[in-house]
Amino acid sequence: MFSSNLLTGIKSTGRPHLGHVIGIIYPTILLLNKELFNNKLILIANLHTLTNYNFMTTNKTNSYQILAAWLACGLDYNKVICYRQSDIPESTELLWFFSTLFPYNRLKLVHSFKEYKRNNKRINTATLTYPLLMAADILISQAELIVVGKDQLQHLEIARKIAKTINKRQRIFTLPKVKILTNLIKGTDGQKMSKSKNNLIDIFSNKKQIKQQIGQIKTQNQFLTEDNNFLKDNLYNIYINFAGSQQINKNLNVGYQHAKAELYSLLLRTFKKERHLYKSYIKQTSKLDKIFQVGATKMKEIIQPTMKKVRKLFDCY
Amino acid sequence: MFSSNLLTGIKSTGRPHLGHVIGIIYPTILLLNKELFNNKLILIANLHTLTNYNFMTTNKTNSYQILAAWLACGLDYNKVICYRQSDIPESTELLWFFSTLFPYNRLKLVHSFKEYKRNNKRINTATLTYPLLMAADILISQAELIVVGKDQLQHLEIARKIAKTINKRQRIFTLPKVKILTNLIKGTDGQKMSKSKNNLIDIFSNKKQIKQQIGQIKTQNQFLTEDNNFLKDNLYNIYINFAGSQQINKNLNVGYQHAKAELYSLLLRTFKKERHLYKSYIKQTSKLDKIFQVGATKMKEIIQPTMKKVRKLFDCY
Repeated sequence: MFSSNLLTGIKSTGRPHLGHVIGIIYPTILLLNKELFNNKLILIANLHTLTNYNFMTTNKTNSYQILAAWLACGLDYNKVICYRQSDIPESTELLWFFSTLFPYNRLKLVHSFKEYKRNNKRINTATLTYPLLMAADILISQAELIVVGKDQLQHLEIARKIAKTINKRQRIFTLPKVKILTNLIKGTDGQKMSKSKNNLIDIFSNKKQIKQQIGQIKTQNQFLTEDNNFLKDNLYNIYINFAGSQQINKNLNVGYQHAKAELYSLLLRTFKKERHLYKSYIKQTSKLDKIFQVGATKMKEIIQPTMKKVRKLFDCY
Repeated sequence: MFSSNLLTGIKSTGRPHLGHVIGIIYPTILLLNKELFNNKLILIANLHTLTNYNFMTTNKTNSYQILAAWLACGLDYNKVICYRQSDIPESTELLWFFSTLFPYNRLKLVHSFKEYKRNNKRINTATLTYPLLMAADILISQAELIVVGKDQLQHLEIARKIAKTINKRQRIFTLPKVKILTNLIKGTDGQKMSKSKNNLIDIFSNKKQIKQQIGQIKTQNQFLTEDNNFLKDNLYNIYINFAGSQQINKNLNVGYQHAKAELYSLLLRTFKKERHLYKSYIKQTSKLDKIFQVGATKMKEIIQPTMKKVRKLFDCY
């Protein structure tokens, strides 16, 4: 039983795809509906997004898309605090304080940084320092439970490390625990579904695009059979998330083209309501602005006692 | 002729010493008294100080000491905006935006970082990133003239570089020009006078300490003579800054002990008023707080239009 805050964060890199919806949004909403937490915080991380400065021009639109998708999937915005990172710039102030205590050499050892370094020649400073901004977002929220993807575990460890370092001087921060959500849906190429890999199925896009995306699912050169083989099959794996096993059995021994058509209509049936709601919410930008504004106001209240203590600890008050 | 803002910044590492007073405070006050600038900004950089976390416990006291010293030297606080870095946390927000554009490799090439790396094993992240915070402080002020020491030239270049990068997208920042102040007074060991080298003369300390510090001035093994040699002499170099050449000539061919006694009484005479005023100001912490508070309020007004433009440029608004 947790008695305090829950936090989950989403980078504002664009409209959530099928993997996000199934792997993150629905399970998180289920968790949020439980009455275990004082504050249920949903952070739209639009400052993190800027480590890739291509997002400089779509950052605001992307934040709207994310909020609209969550609302379309049933998030009750009156029961959560939904806020944009840029509306709580205190986290960048906290980043500075943290960076006076955290060795820069250890940031160079972070997996995500090393991977970025392997693939890119030009590395901006934010790519190195963003685990500290993430630590700031986590610790400023005083959340006891952080809901993240598996790839964020190391960042969580950094946040815990910093919390411990500071708590040794003065007990300021909650030590956050982690709940890992796994995105079960693979992309159309069998890799992790991701925008950058161009292998996603976007249930909030138009029907033509969804059909195209399903068409791109790479298949094995054989029909669906009862053979164990089909468990490794990419199409089967996406399909089984929506159809029950009965439905699957009915469709054994059909060709891939037929199975893709089945998946297409299944997705449209499954997400009919969500697609309709998304279309409606995304047009109501003033309503979305209002939700962000209310979220920021509530969040400001939550963080003030923490920021006051931190500023005093660093003798800047 | 400048029509805009002037900015100078001082790290809150402690009470200004003789080198600061002669090399920075007096020349800056002279400059500030000219009516060339809209806003005359004096920044007490108490966030920079934290790159050395030993200052965590003395940061506030140090800020008071710096302001009291400037006031004692004749700064008219009604004609300037005197503010602490921590009261304008928007500069840390700007630091984040800058860090998304500035390559981290270039930060590793900064002289001050390389020197720190040579002498220290454990390097915190802030030691690497602080030129970006300095750039943020400079550019947020929209100052046309920055008054700095020679060792800050490279940091100024980074600020100009960032301003140019952003101005290419949207003309937001003033390109700052530099006025370099040189600290002419060497330390008691002939090196640059600095707290960390323990070679300073602190005119705001008590008489006994001043006498001790003067006693530590390293001298050549000979008397002051008309020989050119004495131009290289450390004691002579400190002395000549206060006594005119007539006074010096009168004292040729005296022993070092005599010359040190002369310097001691000369310093006490020269800074009698300043020492008296300092003692008075440093006790009036509520007056000093008020000056910082007024400074922060005025500075907040100055920075708002800039921050609004920056947030819009990064699509976070």
